[in-house]
Amino acid sequence: MTKSALQIARAAYQPKVSAALHGAVKAVEGATTQSVADQEEIKRLFPNTYGMPIITFESNEEKVSSPAINVGVILSGGQAPGGHNVISGLFDGIKAINPDSRLYGFLMGPGGLVDHKYKELTADIIDEYRNTGGFDMIGSGRTKLEETAQYDKGLEILKQLNISALVIIGGDDSNTNACVLAEYYKANNTGIQVIGCPKTIDGDLKNEQIETSFGFDTACKVYSEVIGNIERDCNSARKYWHFIKLMGRSASHIALECALQTQPNVCIISEEVEAKKQSLDDIVNYIAGVVAKRAENGNNFGTVLIPEGLIEFIPAMKSLISELNDFLAHHEEEFKQVDRSEQRAYIISKLSKENADLYASLPEGVARQLSLDRDPHGNVQVSLIETEKLLAEMVGNRLAEWKKEGKYNGKFASLVHFFGYEGRCAAPSNYDADYCYSLGYTASCLIAAGKTGYMSSVRNTTAPADQWIAGGIPVTMMMNMEKRHGEMKPVIQKALVKLDGAPFKKFAANRENWAVNTEYVYPGPIQYFGPTEVCDQTTRTLALEQAK
Amino acid sequence: MTKSALQIARAAYQPKVSAALHGAVKAVEGATTQSVADQEEIKRLFPNTYGMPIITFESNEEKVSSPAINVGVILSGGQAPGGHNVISGLFDGIKAINPDSRLYGFLMGPGGLVDHKYKELTADIIDEYRNTGGFDMIGSGRTKLEETAQYDKGLEILKQLNISALVIIGGDDSNTNACVLAEYYKANNTGIQVIGCPKTIDGDLKNEQIETSFGFDTACKVYSEVIGNIERDCNSARKYWHFIKLMGRSASHIALECALQTQPNVCIISEEVEAKKQSLDDIVNYIAGVVAKRAENGNNFGTVLIPEGLIEFIPAMKSLISELNDFLAHHEEEFKQVDRSEQRAYIISKLSKENADLYASLPEGVARQLSLDRDPHGNVQVSLIETEKLLAEMVGNRLAEWKKEGKYNGKFASLVHFFGYEGRCAAPSNYDADYCYSLGYTASCLIAAGKTGYMSSVRNTTAPADQWIAGGIPVTMMMNMEKRHGEMKPVIQKALVKLDGAPFKKFAANRENWAVNTEYVYPGPIQYFGPTEVCDQTTRTLALEQAK
Repeated sequence: MTKSALQIARAAYQPKVSAALHGAVKAVEGATTQSVADQEEIKRLFPNTYGMPIITFESNEEKVSSPAINVGVILSGGQAPGGHNVISGLFDGIKAINPDSRLYGFLMGPGGLVDHKYKELTADIIDEYRNTGGFDMIGSGRTKLEETAQYDKGLEILKQLNISALVIIGGDDSNTNACVLAEYYKANNTGIQVIGCPKTIDGDLKNEQIETSFGFDTACKVYSEVIGNIERDCNSARKYWHFIKLMGRSASHIALECALQTQPNVCIISEEVEAKKQSLDDIVNYIAGVVAKRAENGNNFGTVLIPEGLIEFIPAMKSLISELNDFLAHHEEEFKQVDRSEQRAYIISKLSKENADLYASLPEGVARQLSLDRDPHGNVQVSLIETEKLLAEMVGNRLAEWKKEGKYNGKFASLVHFFGYEGRCAAPSNYDADYCYSLGYTASCLIAAGKTGYMSSVRNTTAPADQWIAGGIPVTMMMNMEKRHGEMKPVIQKALVKLDGAPFKKFAANRENWAVNTEYVYPGPIQYFGPTEVCDQTTRTLALEQAK
Repeated sequence: MTKSALQIARAAYQPKVSAALHGAVKAVEGATTQSVADQEEIKRLFPNTYGMPIITFESNEEKVSSPAINVGVILSGGQAPGGHNVISGLFDGIKAINPDSRLYGFLMGPGGLVDHKYKELTADIIDEYRNTGGFDMIGSGRTKLEETAQYDKGLEILKQLNISALVIIGGDDSNTNACVLAEYYKANNTGIQVIGCPKTIDGDLKNEQIETSFGFDTACKVYSEVIGNIERDCNSARKYWHFIKLMGRSASHIALECALQTQPNVCIISEEVEAKKQSLDDIVNYIAGVVAKRAENGNNFGTVLIPEGLIEFIPAMKSLISELNDFLAHHEEEFKQVDRSEQRAYIISKLSKENADLYASLPEGVARQLSLDRDPHGNVQVSLIETEKLLAEMVGNRLAEWKKEGKYNGKFASLVHFFGYEGRCAAPSNYDADYCYSLGYTASCLIAAGKTGYMSSVRNTTAPADQWIAGGIPVTMMMNMEKRHGEMKPVIQKALVKLDGAPFKKFAANRENWAVNTEYVYPGPIQYFGPTEVCDQTTRTLALEQAK
């Protein structure tokens, strides 16, 4: 493996951790806990892992000698910066417990557990990956651990390797499944503990106990770097409107955080669109309005941020997609017979009036994506819809209308971008490097304390690292019942952007100024070696949420 | 202006300069020079600025007192990281000559000179922009200074502001025009000197005397950062082929440099495609071949770099575009009458057999871009053609054919990216910050030495900055005669990638290994404060070219 100069220099970085983790620790238990909702139902489903106390680790004067333990680790779902540091922290943690402890990585995600694909992670391997981005040390995958047959298959290999604890690093769904697995292994007296770690760049796995999911910090900083660069270009060339779509699935946390970091002219927040029941037309009018207002000042340029999940938050689009899915599922063969050039008219003739009108108003490319590019289940692939092009084109059309009506007299030229894969595997920022290492190290402490069904937790992370609070949160505490594929399931509540939360309020209070004036901020690339105010800043989201 | 933490910290950076520039300098003249070709013709066109000697600045023991001078500065053409540092260096240089010297910036490019739009650049303004990216201090533009009416109009404002020297920061065309302007002002005894500075991220303004154009270093590092992140994602998820198009106009310097930094599985070099007379089909077969070979090892993922200008280097595409431009210019009205769904068939029926076959083989979206999206002169807008999508789609189709024939048995899913605007306005790397500042400072020395028709030159830049050699190169020395818009014109030779040069040879020697194996390198973000091997590396291209 050829390494870049930065990678070599960065390998030596020793992540900062909570003062409590510097030596031996003791687990301090809080009061028993309740799930956030549906307590009776969650309690019924998790008789062995419900109601457990929150755990906090404190320094322990007396060093306890502990037996060696074998631990397994799994990376689940999409990549996020810092995954390798969770594993390094876990490795160092179990070695601190007993130098004979061993760590096994299951390969390519949860499927590796089921298919018995694994490798032992020795010090040489770990050292190759400290402070690096990516999940390539053991790979990741999207297999869901949902069935007892999988649990039993996993148990075979865990027993065979004498593994007594499994750490699952994943998002809300993976942690939900980790808890179901913990419950199952406990109920069946397997002696195997299961611990989760909160991972996702999307930032939607957070709550009263979990301040943030790892990777969000780094990914947002990478996106903000390139958005800032584009803003500076925009403000230098003064002739383009840049429409930038940002990854992040349903929630708009990434778009909001990037807006707070870079102060663009427009940022759409899906959760607000839904709350205000805005139509696609409303959004187009809003953006076109900002373009027109800036044009009055001679500023025929600007930057617009769009969250990936927007389309599904527009009630009318949701209804159109749902009717399309339904119609095409039942008329697939008939639709295939229609000549390509007639397909648009055919679909318009078959939809209800309201949806037909909306469909007819969409640019050709997007209409085609909605009716043709479907996943194996026949559903529209919403993530592939080029919302940035859709909005740029519709805004352009709207402005052309306004020009005819004499309401607008500027120039409009647009460029589109989509950022996602650029940030998921970036090397972790100092924050994520420290946070992830601490999460992994804390997981080892939870294992040593005999816990299962917990999520590793590190709090107070806006303070210097030595004041961070390490501990564990019972996963059941974050659960409620939600409908999934037509069935009620116990799941961790997904955190969407709160319209009454400090980050959104800060954005909302400033956006009119940012829209009309040019108030761009250029964060620049993530720095590792400079002054602390440059290298150790948390996200604006976290800083605002914690500044209570 | 709200500033990011990095911007604030970075403002204090003092660019490193050649030891010779630390105090007073003296201009040492070399032998007289010749143009690279067409000597008689160039000499005839530039009687006053031809044959001048190369200048080198050396330390001067005796401090000479000089009168104050007023200088104008223009940013011409596309943005490149470091433009503000050229201006800061120029400012500090003329103030060192005499504290009463003044600097005026003409606004939004060469048009500002013609239209008399300018502002004085005082110390407050300069200090706001030191070491920042972008051209927003005075803006840039693409107006070409080509006519004597423009020169005369410019002269008015220069005289009015008592400006005796003009510094034009631009690419090959802008520097050519700067030299024509220098010749004109000299021939007319206006007393106004004109100095050029080599700017362009594309890296195509370089020759025996000019080691590199500024901005190339930073832009390539930004692109390599995000390419490396995508490679790491690619190698973690192991399920996508990423097709990445890179800015850079005709030349493939950026793609080649990024390939040397990140070691992707495939990088296409336009100059090689042209030299080997490759067809689109050859390129598709080559990429599909690499995909198939990797699939045999179970690696259904990879990264492909594509230079922006590729299309025009494929002889067959060039011929198709030329026939299309010609045909549509003469049949525009007729074409407009054709129903949208019939346009493709219509065009196929009108083209020569060879071009019709090629056109018919293109995916629908690209065919449409070729026939519909035309610039105001009716020409195909080659830069808007989504070559990355074109190749991804055609490779997918080819693999599907091979699968039917039993020659390929892998999975192929592609994602596309285009990077350009992300890098043009990034804050300059240490190299570009130093290089640009030196270029600007050196321009002030050329002005003080009474020179005109020179390009500011800083050489030996792979050595530590104190060993850099500052001087000036007569622009006529870099010129030859080329056909432009049907007329022979004196122009600076554009530097394309040399297939017998060290950078390409290094790439060619390694690409088979990089194709089949996974040898990705992850450069990470530009660092400003760390160890020198991380912060002060030049591009691989420059290092290889200078390592003779």
